[in-house]
Amino acid sequence: MRLRVDLLPHGNYPDVVLVVDVLRATTTAVTYLERGADALLLTVTPELALSLRAGAGGGDAVLLGGERGGLPLPGFDFGNSPAEAADQNFTGKTVVMNTTNGTGAAHVAAQTGKHVLLAALINAHAAARRARALATEEIAIVCAGTDGRAGLEDVYAAGVLAEYLLAMGVFTVDDGARIALTIRRNAGNPIEALGSSGHGQHLARLGLEGDVRHAAQVSISRVVPVLAPEQGVPGALKPGALKFVAS
Amino acid sequence: MRLRVDLLPHGNYPDVVLVVDVLRATTTAVTYLERGADALLLTVTPELALSLRAGAGGGDAVLLGGERGGLPLPGFDFGNSPAEAADQNFTGKTVVMNTTNGTGAAHVAAQTGKHVLLAALINAHAAARRARALATEEIAIVCAGTDGRAGLEDVYAAGVLAEYLLAMGVFTVDDGARIALTIRRNAGNPIEALGSSGHGQHLARLGLEGDVRHAAQVSISRVVPVLAPEQGVPGALKPGALKFVAS
Repeated sequence: MRLRVDLLPHGNYPDVVLVVDVLRATTTAVTYLERGADALLLTVTPELALSLRAGAGGGDAVLLGGERGGLPLPGFDFGNSPAEAADQNFTGKTVVMNTTNGTGAAHVAAQTGKHVLLAALINAHAAARRARALATEEIAIVCAGTDGRAGLEDVYAAGVLAEYLLAMGVFTVDDGARIALTIRRNAGNPIEALGSSGHGQHLARLGLEGDVRHAAQVSISRVVPVLAPEQGVPGALKPGALKFVAS
Repeated sequence: MRLRVDLLPHGNYPDVVLVVDVLRATTTAVTYLERGADALLLTVTPELALSLRAGAGGGDAVLLGGERGGLPLPGFDFGNSPAEAADQNFTGKTVVMNTTNGTGAAHVAAQTGKHVLLAALINAHAAARRARALATEEIAIVCAGTDGRAGLEDVYAAGVLAEYLLAMGVFTVDDGARIALTIRRNAGNPIEALGSSGHGQHLARLGLEGDVRHAAQVSISRVVPVLAPEQGVPGALKPGALKFVAS
């Protein structure tokens, strides 16, 4: 079994993919499902998110969460904040997400991946176990990064996932996995690693330290968002939207 | 002053760029100039390299070096091997290079960089000193990677360069620089780091361990290839070719 870590999304994933955008998209995604959401739709553009809600015919069965540059998107209900999401009840809701880096990484993964899961620190153990159970040849951990550049927070989280996986079985590891494991073992505890990362500092400047602290909790959730095998949502889902459900 | 390390080429470099492809393009480039070459031309395609030699009117004043997947290119004189280059005399010659990753990274750097230098372990100290002397706002160390994925050997070399730079002055460092420094301090000595990297193992399988050993020597050369300010070589240089000279 191969363990591969891409420090940025690359593509050509043959088997299981764990998409990581720990600050904050995948952390928030886990939290929406943990708090009862039926499904998540990850869209390639904010416009598609808005049109999916409009297509659902009003009401609050479909909610929108997302950001650009860390700030909420106009017309959206939520701002991609896991701390905010953790205080809400999403039972019976579908949440449509669009974010700067994480949703794009999920779409790259979905192009070829047989099983696409969303992973963060908060569900790290569950995500690693699920990946191990599903994989037949390769587990690829894909860091979303920030605006096309590697982020310390995602590489650190990839290292945490890799360490769990190596405890569960025998893998050949690539350069990316070795880099992630080295960062995980040398970059301090989760709050130090996430808080000192460039993106963590950016969020702190926006007053969002609470999200960084929330995202730095390790394995507090057993929810693993998994790309639904049937992508059809009658009357709603269009090309450019991926549906994730809890597993 | 900012110190930035891109684990893969990204672009938008405002000031000094150190391009790193330690296995093997930038190591070989330094060696060509160390062994007397007048200039290096880095081309975007092998075809352009061949046409530059043809345009030079025959003779051996223009030599071609390059590879694809580690293997020599058809019609080329040399195979991107620093060990091979170190045994030759290139006095009075121009060497045209085309390689899988390194030449592409140099072209990305040249799009915006004010000063573009080629760096490897063999010229690490000289390259860091030159970068420090030229920079006014930022030094970007750009890892070429392998086929669009980060390589341990380049990240390690970037960490060596970053360590030299931090010894020379005060920098703000980004996530990439922190990752590279952590790898440099934890991945063993240079031959361990380069030899155990995915690309180092690939070269060993091709019987090219000698190149890996050559590339793992630290600061044995004071030559720093620098992108020539005037890019014109009358009758020879075309768009898609970058001219580097020793500095």
